[in-house]
Amino acid sequence: MNPQYQDIAAAFVQSYYLHFDDNEKRQTMASFYDEETSLMSFEGQNLLGRKKIMEKLSSLTFQKIAHSITKVDCQPMFDGGVLVCVLGQLKTDEDPPHTFSQTFVLKPYNEGFYVQHDVFRIAVHDAL
Amino acid sequence: MNPQYQDIAAAFVQSYYLHFDDNEKRQTMASFYDEETSLMSFEGQNLLGRKKIMEKLSSLTFQKIAHSITKVDCQPMFDGGVLVCVLGQLKTDEDPPHTFSQTFVLKPYNEGFYVQHDVFRIAVHDAL
Repeated sequence: MNPQYQDIAAAFVQSYYLHFDDNEKRQTMASFYDEETSLMSFEGQNLLGRKKIMEKLSSLTFQKIAHSITKVDCQPMFDGGVLVCVLGQLKTDEDPPHTFSQTFVLKPYNEGFYVQHDVFRIAVHDAL
Repeated sequence: MNPQYQDIAAAFVQSYYLHFDDNEKRQTMASFYDEETSLMSFEGQNLLGRKKIMEKLSSLTFQKIAHSITKVDCQPMFDGGVLVCVLGQLKTDEDPPHTFSQTFVLKPYNEGFYVQHDVFRIAVHDAL
């Protein structure tokens, strides 16, 4: 298990949302994902591989987005990867903030990591 | 990758919360976890191994708890495991419902699975 998992998770989260929240940088996020094996679930839609994932990220229709991170939990995995669970709020354009959760599995690759699994959900419930 | 991953995730989620929401059954949840290697993050507190995890679950002070599951996202993992991300609401005693998210990594073991990673968070934010 990688003893640096907390630093790896913190650096990843900072870089990921910095890219996501900048309309130009978001177009360069392909390098976070593997060409063939990365899996994303985006609001229940499943996307496999870098190309499909980037098509999804490029198709999002907001003009502005801002993620505010509330908590980052991370755990070392037995293959040297890192499990990263993010809880936060996001604001798109002039909409009210929504709670979101996003889970990443980072997989070692060369000297760095790529996103093997990415699960994103906005918290919208039927009323209890 | 396990082609049954969706069925595995659905059966796991149903069984897990059925046990959790029953004060007697919750005491029998040790079999979900590995004695030495299971990792839990519970509201930021890290617990390693079945004994520590069960001590935590046994120390919870509510009289009644009910989870309501909004969404379950799952992905097959490359070692035959399953990533399971749960979004829902929970009610303890007479408190108002809170959004929670919980991520599991299920690892194959004999004919079944155990929980290798478990990350639980209630969504409480500072106001944006």
